[in-house]
Amino acid sequence: MSDPIELSCPSPSTGYERVVLAHGAGGRVMQRLITDLFIAAFDTPQLHRGHDGATVELSPPIAVTTDAFTVTPRFFPGGDIGSLAVYGTVNDVAMCGARPAVLTAAFILEEGLPLPELRRIVESMAAAARRCGVRIVTGDTKVVEHGQGDGVYVTTTGMGTVVAKAAIEPASVRPGDAVLVSGPVGDHGIAVLAAREGIEIETALRSDAGPVHEAVLALLQADLSVHCLRDPTRGGLASALGEVAQSGGHGVRIDEASVPVRPEVADACELLGLDPLRAACEGRFVAWLPARHAARAIEILQASGCERATTIGEITSEHSGVVVLRDGAGGERILDMLAGEQWPRIC
Amino acid sequence: MSDPIELSCPSPSTGYERVVLAHGAGGRVMQRLITDLFIAAFDTPQLHRGHDGATVELSPPIAVTTDAFTVTPRFFPGGDIGSLAVYGTVNDVAMCGARPAVLTAAFILEEGLPLPELRRIVESMAAAARRCGVRIVTGDTKVVEHGQGDGVYVTTTGMGTVVAKAAIEPASVRPGDAVLVSGPVGDHGIAVLAAREGIEIETALRSDAGPVHEAVLALLQADLSVHCLRDPTRGGLASALGEVAQSGGHGVRIDEASVPVRPEVADACELLGLDPLRAACEGRFVAWLPARHAARAIEILQASGCERATTIGEITSEHSGVVVLRDGAGGERILDMLAGEQWPRIC
Repeated sequence: MSDPIELSCPSPSTGYERVVLAHGAGGRVMQRLITDLFIAAFDTPQLHRGHDGATVELSPPIAVTTDAFTVTPRFFPGGDIGSLAVYGTVNDVAMCGARPAVLTAAFILEEGLPLPELRRIVESMAAAARRCGVRIVTGDTKVVEHGQGDGVYVTTTGMGTVVAKAAIEPASVRPGDAVLVSGPVGDHGIAVLAAREGIEIETALRSDAGPVHEAVLALLQADLSVHCLRDPTRGGLASALGEVAQSGGHGVRIDEASVPVRPEVADACELLGLDPLRAACEGRFVAWLPARHAARAIEILQASGCERATTIGEITSEHSGVVVLRDGAGGERILDMLAGEQWPRIC
Repeated sequence: MSDPIELSCPSPSTGYERVVLAHGAGGRVMQRLITDLFIAAFDTPQLHRGHDGATVELSPPIAVTTDAFTVTPRFFPGGDIGSLAVYGTVNDVAMCGARPAVLTAAFILEEGLPLPELRRIVESMAAAARRCGVRIVTGDTKVVEHGQGDGVYVTTTGMGTVVAKAAIEPASVRPGDAVLVSGPVGDHGIAVLAAREGIEIETALRSDAGPVHEAVLALLQADLSVHCLRDPTRGGLASALGEVAQSGGHGVRIDEASVPVRPEVADACELLGLDPLRAACEGRFVAWLPARHAARAIEILQASGCERATTIGEITSEHSGVVVLRDGAGGERILDMLAGEQWPRIC
């Protein structure tokens, strides 16, 4: 499933083709990996200073968010663990109503990881950061023995200045709010699952992993009263709606037919007995805002690259904490959060 | 070597005695772990809001630093992976000349980890954060399959407002600067090694893991011209001196006899054929500042709990990038950075 690894690129630390324990041990071999690979790829002034931390100029209030990425496989159609870490964290900063500016990156490498794979991941992170206009300013590298990791785990922390004028959080959601989704759901989860299991369901299946902050900022700058934002990652749309409903203490009614799902995702879910509403997205978000602002919000989202943005439901004052799904025939059922999830290690 | 685990404490998610994949899967089981364990222990307003990120009020310039912790064993004399993660990151923020204020914490848990162990680690982090006056404002939890991790890895990111008036970095170091160390070196590395290998060398061996920011802030507030700060973690004092010398483009001469080493650490090193100057500390720091400020700096450090703070050497304009060790008889030798280190997974 993964693209072929380019093995001819020069090894970042001459004499090593794979990660060894010395790459995390604080000596010259580690220093060289950091200089030749991480600093060369990320290329920010803070990293070139060679200090074990960075100084940044950010105006308060500052949004901060952190995520560990353990996705398997680490290369999948439409992305890899490196770009996913950048987009995932950029998106989480945006979900706080903030403009993403700065990232940190910590790597836990497993002894034996081919260095060309690490290089490919790091270069993918650097490209994703450039695309988003964020800087990776500091980081850390640890190496664990073979069998104590799974190639590479990446933890990214993101920061940015809050631009939203009011608090973007579950407690701000009100009965009568519309619930919008920025695009089709479930692509990432199904694409990663197919790649992992080697299932050739649909060649068109690709992760939606990508940045959403420009669309979010466009919404916020339009002076709409955005009450809450959430990216439907683990647990998919069902968990995003359920978590916000429980935290905010309100109910949600979703019109099932209005939720955009790509035909190839729907087909794969049908075949595998999965629910696209529980499959992770990594380039979509849900927005809660007053119903009277919904039409304008969708216009703005569609003009910001979210062509399939749409209203999928509304906030109710009844059945607090519960998500109700209404089908085409007017029947209703509860969209429960699962205890676990359909599958692990999706991000 | 590790203290007995209290197995009678209630499991944070009823029905589970160990971490299962569902604890990281985005559903109700994960939500309950986060609510009952992480939010209950860290207890910060940002976490109670139930949003996937936090907003903090920090004035610029802001220091930011990140570290992944993979120490083994996860409980060792004088600390554990949780308190180590907090102190290590608090100290790295202080090394930027900043007052630590905010932490984030991301956990990679291995399926099968006993939940009472996780609780003990999380409560240790909470206690360490309270001791340092920092708040853990947001986090993340992922679970990997048994055999793809090693119990628990913790990645912490720290932030704080810079209080130093000039840039604290290797490039600020000047020939003629004195090199100070805040206390005896090598305790952490030797204590962890002894615990890991089950060596009963010295019952008095304990990690020095602890916060140094109060002592650093006392130095900075005294209007001394602190040029650089570095905590000698992986690779020990040798790597800290070598890295700063190479980044700053200067030489260092260290008076070997002046470097404080506890007798029990010296004895253990003698027995095991290890060098205390290459053994990690987690509660010490090195400071570079003009020689004329050294005596005052040591007074301040001693008054701030660093009773054994002392000058260990000076910066030279010759042999750039090299650390020279002078012995009692006036002989000199180069203190090279090792390619790797004496042992892995010390932090």
